[in-house]
Amino acid sequence: MDKRSLIFPAQEFRARIAALQAGLADQSLDALLLTAPADIFYTTGFLTRFWESPARPWFVVVPIAGDPVAVTPSIGADLMGRTWLHDIRTWDAPDPRDDGVSLLAEALAQAVAPTGRIGLPMGLETHLRMPLADFEALRARLAPRRFVDATACIQRVREVKSEAEIDKIRATCAVAARAFARVPEFAQAGRARSDVFRDFQIALLSEGADWVSYVAGAAGPDGYGDVISPAGPDPLQRGDVLMLDTGAVKDGYFCDFDRNFAIAPASDIARRAHAALWHATEDALSELRPGMLARDVHDLLSRGLERRGMTPSGGRLGHGLGITLTEWPSFTPLDDTPLCAGMVLTLEPGCVTAEGRIMVHEENIVLRDTGPELLSPRAPEDLPEIGA
Amino acid sequence: MDKRSLIFPAQEFRARIAALQAGLADQSLDALLLTAPADIFYTTGFLTRFWESPARPWFVVVPIAGDPVAVTPSIGADLMGRTWLHDIRTWDAPDPRDDGVSLLAEALAQAVAPTGRIGLPMGLETHLRMPLADFEALRARLAPRRFVDATACIQRVREVKSEAEIDKIRATCAVAARAFARVPEFAQAGRARSDVFRDFQIALLSEGADWVSYVAGAAGPDGYGDVISPAGPDPLQRGDVLMLDTGAVKDGYFCDFDRNFAIAPASDIARRAHAALWHATEDALSELRPGMLARDVHDLLSRGLERRGMTPSGGRLGHGLGITLTEWPSFTPLDDTPLCAGMVLTLEPGCVTAEGRIMVHEENIVLRDTGPELLSPRAPEDLPEIGA
Repeated sequence: MDKRSLIFPAQEFRARIAALQAGLADQSLDALLLTAPADIFYTTGFLTRFWESPARPWFVVVPIAGDPVAVTPSIGADLMGRTWLHDIRTWDAPDPRDDGVSLLAEALAQAVAPTGRIGLPMGLETHLRMPLADFEALRARLAPRRFVDATACIQRVREVKSEAEIDKIRATCAVAARAFARVPEFAQAGRARSDVFRDFQIALLSEGADWVSYVAGAAGPDGYGDVISPAGPDPLQRGDVLMLDTGAVKDGYFCDFDRNFAIAPASDIARRAHAALWHATEDALSELRPGMLARDVHDLLSRGLERRGMTPSGGRLGHGLGITLTEWPSFTPLDDTPLCAGMVLTLEPGCVTAEGRIMVHEENIVLRDTGPELLSPRAPEDLPEIGA
Repeated sequence: MDKRSLIFPAQEFRARIAALQAGLADQSLDALLLTAPADIFYTTGFLTRFWESPARPWFVVVPIAGDPVAVTPSIGADLMGRTWLHDIRTWDAPDPRDDGVSLLAEALAQAVAPTGRIGLPMGLETHLRMPLADFEALRARLAPRRFVDATACIQRVREVKSEAEIDKIRATCAVAARAFARVPEFAQAGRARSDVFRDFQIALLSEGADWVSYVAGAAGPDGYGDVISPAGPDPLQRGDVLMLDTGAVKDGYFCDFDRNFAIAPASDIARRAHAALWHATEDALSELRPGMLARDVHDLLSRGLERRGMTPSGGRLGHGLGITLTEWPSFTPLDDTPLCAGMVLTLEPGCVTAEGRIMVHEENIVLRDTGPELLSPRAPEDLPEIGA
C-alpha cells in the first residue's frame, strides 16, 4: 500500500486549507468543524465508500492556522494515516458512552480560545453528520465558545475547482461518454428497463468508473414523468424516449449528465423538444460568462426554450458539480450566487412535452474567463434513434 | 409506470406505522419527524438513488394517529405519489428563502398541540438530514412544542424485520453469493486490485443487484491492514489473502458479507486464521439466542477465537443489517441492546494475523426463536485458493 494518498499531492490540499483559513479570517472564525463526507475528502483526501455505514461520525477540525486535525473512528486510522494529515486522533467507535465527543471537544478547545467562534456549515445543502444529541453536548461543553454558520466559508472555496480537480471531472465525464455510446447495444424495444439500467451501470464500470453512485432515468412516449426513479421491470417500447442520467465516480470526482434516445420511431414532439433543449444549451455555451449570477443561467436557458416554442419544466436547470453528485449554486430564479472562473457546472434545461411529461438534457462544463469549456463530450444535435 | 410502489403492499407499511405509533404512545410523543433516507424509505416505500444529491431535504411526519404526511421537494412528487401515502405536500426546492421549513412547520403544528412533544432521532447512528440552521428555525417556530429524542422509537421497530423484509435480504445475499462464486474468474495473481474490484461490481450487477452501494476489500501476505479502502492499482501477488466485502442492494435491501481467497499458495497463518474465524462463527451460529445482549455476541466470538489461539481484532464483531449497510446494534463489549427474534444481523469476527494485519470473516443471519438462520450461503470451512 502507498504511504500517502495518490489522488493529489499534499500541495493541492495545502492550497485548499490556506483558502479555507483565509475565509475563516474574513468571518472572524477561529476554526472550522467539518463532518460531511465530501468536506472531509476535500480537506484530507480520505476516500472510502465506508460512508455508506451510518454507524460512526467522522470529524476534521481546520484551525485558523496550521494543519487540520482528524478525529476519527479507529477503523479509519490506517486509511487516514495514508493521507497528508499527521495529527490523527482515534477512538473505538461506536461507543455509546462517548462517541468521539470528548476527543473532538479537546481538539476544538485546543484550537479555539474560550471567547472564540467555531465555524460549522449550517446552511442550504449542508447536513451535520453526527447525532444531534452529541452536537448539543459538544456545544454545551465548549461554551462560552460559539458555533457560527460557516456555509459560505466552505462553499466559496470548494466551488472554484483547481486544474487538477477539473482534470478529474473531465476524466469521469469521458468514462460516462464511452458508456453512453454503448447504450444502443443494450437498449432495444422489448428489453426490461431494469435490465437496461443494470447494463448501463456495467458499461460505466467497464469503461473505467471506480463505482456508480447514481443512475436514474425514465422512458415513455413523447417524454417521461419523473427523473429520479429506479427502473421497473416494464419493457422499453417502440416510440419511447429513453433518458439515462448518471453520476459515476472516478478518484472521488463525479460526472452528472444525461442522454436521450428514441426507441425508433422518434415522435415529432420528442425530436422538436430535443432540438430546442440542444439549442438552448448552445446559447448558454456561447453566452455564459463569469460575473453572471446563477439565476441568469436559469433565465438564459428558459428564454432559449421559450424562443423555440417550448415551456421550461419547473425546478432548477443546472447546478454545481464536483465531489458530490450535485453542488451549489442552483440555476433557479432565486439563486444570486455569482459565477466565477473555475466553477464546474451542469447545464440542465428541461421542457414540457405533453401533459405530465418532460424531456431533460444535461451537459457538464467548467466556466473559464472566456466562457464555458465542455467537460462532457457534446450530445448530438439530433435525437439519436435506436432500432431505426 | 405502476400507480403504487410494488416493493411491499400497503399493509406492510401500515403495520410499521402502527408499531411506530405504539412507540410514540409509550414515550408520550405526539408525532415523529423523520429526515433520513432509510427512515423515509421504511415508512413510505419511497426508493430512489436521488439521495446522492445533498441539495434538498425530505421530511416524513408520523402523527400519533392516522397516516404519515410527506413534505417533499416537488421533484419527488411523482415518485412519492406512487407510494401508499396520500397526503404529500411539495415545494420547489432548493429555495434559499424557505426550503420547506414553513410547510413542515405547518404539518407538525397540525399534528401536535402547542403543549406537545415531537420525536426526532438524535442518538447514536442517527443524523439530521436537513440544514442545522433550518432545524433551529423550525424549533423556534414550533415552540412551545418540544423536540425530544426518539432514537429508540424508530430503532426498536426497524430492528425487527418482517418476513417480507427477511425475504428481500435473503434475495440480496443470494445475488452476492453468486458474484463471490465468480471471483476466481477474475482475481488472479498479476491483476490490478482496482480491476478486481471493478469486475466484482460487474459480477454483482450481472447476478441481479439493482446497484452496488458498497464494495471494499484488501489484500496482502498473511492478511490485510484495513478493510475500508478503495482499491489501488497494485497487482495481486502470489501468497496474498484477498478479502472482498459488499453491500449490494436489491429492492432497497442490503446484504453485507465478505469472503476471503488465497492467491495460491495460502500461507499457514492465513489458513489457520480462516479456520478459527469459521469455527468461531460456527459457535455463534449454534449458541446465539433471543434474550442475549449485543455484547454477549462480542464475547461469544472473541472467546471462540481465543480458544483457537487467535487474538480478536479491535472494533465491533458484527452489527444489524437491513435498509442501510449497517444498522444497530453493535457487537462490542459496550452494547446492551437485547437481541430479539426477527433481527437481521452480521457475524463479523476478525483476528490478528501479523503485526498490523488482520483477517475478517462475515455472515448474515436472521435470529429466530430457535437460534440463527443463515441468510448468506455459508462460507467454505477451508480458505479457498485461487490458482493452486
